[in-house]
Amino acid sequence: MTTSEEADSVPVVFINSFEVGKGKEEEFVAAWKKVKEQMEKQDGFISTALHQSLSEEAPFRFVNVVQWQSKETLEAAFASPEFRRTAPVVAAVVQGSHPCMYRVIER
Amino acid sequence: MTTSEEADSVPVVFINSFEVGKGKEEEFVAAWKKVKEQMEKQDGFISTALHQSLSEEAPFRFVNVVQWQSKETLEAAFASPEFRRTAPVVAAVVQGSHPCMYRVIER
Repeated sequence: MTTSEEADSVPVVFINSFEVGKGKEEEFVAAWKKVKEQMEKQDGFISTALHQSLSEEAPFRFVNVVQWQSKETLEAAFASPEFRRTAPVVAAVVQGSHPCMYRVIER
Repeated sequence: MTTSEEADSVPVVFINSFEVGKGKEEEFVAAWKKVKEQMEKQDGFISTALHQSLSEEAPFRFVNVVQWQSKETLEAAFASPEFRRTAPVVAAVVQGSHPCMYRVIER
């Protein structure tokens, strides 16, 4: 296995910070659940935690932190018809999002 | 205990998304460790996970996700002399940060 193949098979954390307008919170959570129900069926999905800010003034009202077995499985899930079909539901509700793949480097 | 007192004593997650310039990564992690060493001594600290983006182009190169026993203990830690003394070290390295308190609402 080359180093880049190795890198692709190590657990990753997908973090997405969402900008959601006031009064849209419930609609966002309902849409998020639709996507989550599909993603948790995908190979390599480990767990997710949707965070809601205590303050209504927070720039990022919701932050989703998702654990995946590898970069490979996460990318396959993003390419899946289930994700492509449900993701627009969330996109239609949010004012902005900041999706990115991470690795934990310190605890 | 009133509802607001109850709310203050339920676990919270502190999430901070950092904008860090290229080449500043090591300096940031070293500064972050200084703050972490102080915060983990504070009452109510549970755990922390510092995430680094796989992509160097990510707007938020680092995301820190910290578990606290309560809003009260987190606020006390922020008011501590240890935090006030070390936090500027991180502030001096980053281009921006987005600190906020959250609660997990869905898994």
